[in-house]
Amino acid sequence: MPLVRIDVPRGRSADQHHALGEAVYQAMVQTLNVPANDRFIVIQEHGPSTLQIDPSYLGVARSPNAIVVQVTLNAGRTVELKRAFYARTVELLAEQGVRPEDVLISLIEVVKENWSFGMGQAQYAPVE
Amino acid sequence: MPLVRIDVPRGRSADQHHALGEAVYQAMVQTLNVPANDRFIVIQEHGPSTLQIDPSYLGVARSPNAIVVQVTLNAGRTVELKRAFYARTVELLAEQGVRPEDVLISLIEVVKENWSFGMGQAQYAPVE
Amino acid sequence: MPLVRIDVPRGRSADQHHALGEAVYQAMVQTLNVPANDRFIVIQEHGPSTLQIDPSYLGVARSPNAIVVQVTLNAGRTVELKRAFYARTVELLAEQGVRPEDVLISLIEVVKENWSFGMGQAQYAPVE
Repeated sequence: MPLVRIDVPRGRSADQHHALGEAVYQAMVQTLNVPANDRFIVIQEHGPSTLQIDPSYLGVARSPNAIVVQVTLNAGRTVELKRAFYARTVELLAEQGVRPEDVLISLIEVVKENWSFGMGQAQYAPVE
Repeated sequence: MPLVRIDVPRGRSADQHHALGEAVYQAMVQTLNVPANDRFIVIQEHGPSTLQIDPSYLGVARSPNAIVVQVTLNAGRTVELKRAFYARTVELLAEQGVRPEDVLISLIEVVKENWSFGMGQAQYAPVE
Repeated sequence: MPLVRIDVPRGRSADQHHALGEAVYQAMVQTLNVPANDRFIVIQEHGPSTLQIDPSYLGVARSPNAIVVQVTLNAGRTVELKRAFYARTVELLAEQGVRPEDVLISLIEVVKENWSFGMGQAQYAPVE
């Protein structure tokens, strides 16, 4: 159910794209109770002029390699779970060479009936 | 009002892009009470490494041609209308060669004052 | 905190991309109480077939140069502030050659704990 959009500087290999997606997916499974195989990742590559990231907002020293991770997911996770997700995501992305300072994360929460996973069905909608 | 983002594998013609947009637009008009001409579609093409779609989550057999349709729209549609939208979208996309298994749909709901359709006005905001 | 996505027709220079981002950023600072340096802008360039904008919906005469600005931000701004943001955005974009008719704006509101600005921390989350 989470739909993950990752905006990154151009230059990674296909394997590296898969590793980025895997890092965010694993963090979701490990901290947000996301089911196995619920893995839907959209990556967008950018040149320097189309990914404009402030280098110091809130005292975080961001580099030109900074990335944006925006996740659409079902509402209901506690602040504690969200904190755990952010922390685990930067840990796993660090293993892929992304500095913890360079990860901006944004969550968009929706209700369960706002998803169709194929066949035109609303697989998560409440039974009526 | 709905803003539609469609992420697709690279390789479609301009005509095919328009047909994809038209399919989702027609499904919105037919099922979600979206007005005629309220048609704002953003498409993004991808290579295999930047559109990562699980091939079997929830038992749906997705192919490498799977697409993602994410719609931002005003809140207030019932679960029944959303179900109808999902079903009609996959029907109309099937006419464009997209398998029903290959359509992931995500809705993001917002309030009416969250739109400006030009001229810097909030055309849908409640009158104060 | 606001994360800004701008979809534009292909053909602008890097400087023009920065000027677009700056216009939306300045409008947010001036009207939405967004802090200085809270500037995170993602731009996507399009050919004519992947940015499909209705040319007349709600009586607004849009050109092939129309753009989409979608902002994810914290909930809580009044309708009045949103109106001011829309008006100021088109004013500042007009200085960059974008016609007021050609600016579609969409806001997505989230709660404060839905952001991490680096280091895996939830910098805006309420203290527990």
